[in-house]
Amino acid sequence: MFNTISIIGCGLIGSSILRAVSLKNLAKEIKVFDFSKDVSAYLKKENLCQNVTNDIRHCVTDSDLIIIATPLSSYKEIILSIKDNLKNGAILTDTGSVKKEVIKIIHNMNLKNITWIPSHPIAGTEESGPKSGFAEMFENRWCIISPPENCEKNIINNLKSFWEALGSKVKIMSANEHDQILSLTSHLPHAIAYNIVRTVMSVEDKLKQEVIQYSAGGLRDFTRIAASNPLMWRDIFLDNSENIVKEIDNFIQKIEELKKAISDKNGDKLYQIFNSTKDVRKEIIKAGQDTKEPGFGRK
Amino acid sequence: MFNTISIIGCGLIGSSILRAVSLKNLAKEIKVFDFSKDVSAYLKKENLCQNVTNDIRHCVTDSDLIIIATPLSSYKEIILSIKDNLKNGAILTDTGSVKKEVIKIIHNMNLKNITWIPSHPIAGTEESGPKSGFAEMFENRWCIISPPENCEKNIINNLKSFWEALGSKVKIMSANEHDQILSLTSHLPHAIAYNIVRTVMSVEDKLKQEVIQYSAGGLRDFTRIAASNPLMWRDIFLDNSENIVKEIDNFIQKIEELKKAISDKNGDKLYQIFNSTKDVRKEIIKAGQDTKEPGFGRK
Repeated sequence: MFNTISIIGCGLIGSSILRAVSLKNLAKEIKVFDFSKDVSAYLKKENLCQNVTNDIRHCVTDSDLIIIATPLSSYKEIILSIKDNLKNGAILTDTGSVKKEVIKIIHNMNLKNITWIPSHPIAGTEESGPKSGFAEMFENRWCIISPPENCEKNIINNLKSFWEALGSKVKIMSANEHDQILSLTSHLPHAIAYNIVRTVMSVEDKLKQEVIQYSAGGLRDFTRIAASNPLMWRDIFLDNSENIVKEIDNFIQKIEELKKAISDKNGDKLYQIFNSTKDVRKEIIKAGQDTKEPGFGRK
Repeated sequence: MFNTISIIGCGLIGSSILRAVSLKNLAKEIKVFDFSKDVSAYLKKENLCQNVTNDIRHCVTDSDLIIIATPLSSYKEIILSIKDNLKNGAILTDTGSVKKEVIKIIHNMNLKNITWIPSHPIAGTEESGPKSGFAEMFENRWCIISPPENCEKNIINNLKSFWEALGSKVKIMSANEHDQILSLTSHLPHAIAYNIVRTVMSVEDKLKQEVIQYSAGGLRDFTRIAASNPLMWRDIFLDNSENIVKEIDNFIQKIEELKKAISDKNGDKLYQIFNSTKDVRKEIIKAGQDTKEPGFGRK
């Protein structure tokens, strides 16, 4: 499909793409760059890639598809480093969770003769680093791509087919719509998960151990999300701050309402609140977005 | 261990106790009462119990251990109904998630010649009703029991052994301590989960379907908790309102801090917040309270 694919950043997501591309023979050549020497050493040791380079320019030269899979805050430096070495007609994409700021950066670079199409595979786990990656990561998961308005259809289709070859379902969506929807489905939930774990862990030390001991009552589910890569999430909150702040405000307004119902011992209102959320899960399971097994099928 | 065990309320928890007691032969006789005719019919049809009665007094007569497994708001009515039929020396327990109010109710009843020891098995799923119960529900899960101060040790041990026979690890704790710890590990997380699902679902209709479609980015985990039995949770929030309101206040204070860091684009502060919660999950897994498989081991 592509002669040469370059992956910049080989953590959880980048290494999963690498594994999947290798396994499915989606490129004649795969080249990999990572800022971390440990990551490069790991990839070589595990024989995950024949062409691991510490020269980012060399990594992208002659490449047909370049995938940036690093935290958002590193994009500017990366694109500045590679922009003069990109092959005519190459597709540049990424895997980031926010699009608005990145599009600004790319726009200001005024890249010539290449096509920039942001991608966002909605996949991942709470773990980080190349050891945690796996080839099946993208199977049956959504990947949102947000091509610029004037983008040629056959180029969009090439990128779409790439993600489909990794097993993803591809949705084309504007960057603004993407950032708004993800603020609801992912960024707000992460803000809340981080916040609840921080709230609960601010109890005095003697309580902490007991809180951990009895966390199976609900808290543990939040700690999974709050264990995600902090650097990646810092960047997401910086880049999508407007949407996220708006959603946090909505959340606070709703929790004040709930708090009042609890203080007032307003049983009818509480029942109404708790009953209103029951069906959402059924719809999510119907949409194939979660397992119907109770407790996520935990043993 | 006990000649006769009575289970009042045979939903998710009660029916799981019934299944486990039968499977492990923990009583010569098991008697069951449920307010719902559908539940009683189901238990008979599935042959889960030989002795399903629609007479709550008859259900407890001659019973050595009576387990109330109904929503908290029904306790008063239940105990008033059964109090004159309890056998001398019987143990009365429950499975409720809050203890303070229940202890008040029992105290006011002035029950004679029986021992009241509240239990709380920290087990369950997001599902409700007897069809969702299973005999292994309590295996390797904590059960907190909160005996009154003057309680005889051998009686406490009888109840402890019962829960241990179901596979639980038993912890003895004061009712106040129980209610405080559970407000942190379970009640606050449920309040937050209900609230985030409600916040996200208050978007305009055209967005809703997309929110469900892309919920795998984080939201879906919260919807599991927010799918729990609304009646049971209404009662928990009413009975433990003081602790929960306090924790919600702490939560709001912390989320205002987080919101400010996002608005100010304060990357250092955000990193610090997101990094501080990372280790909690490791401790929870170490404590055997969750699976270490990424994504809870979802396929």
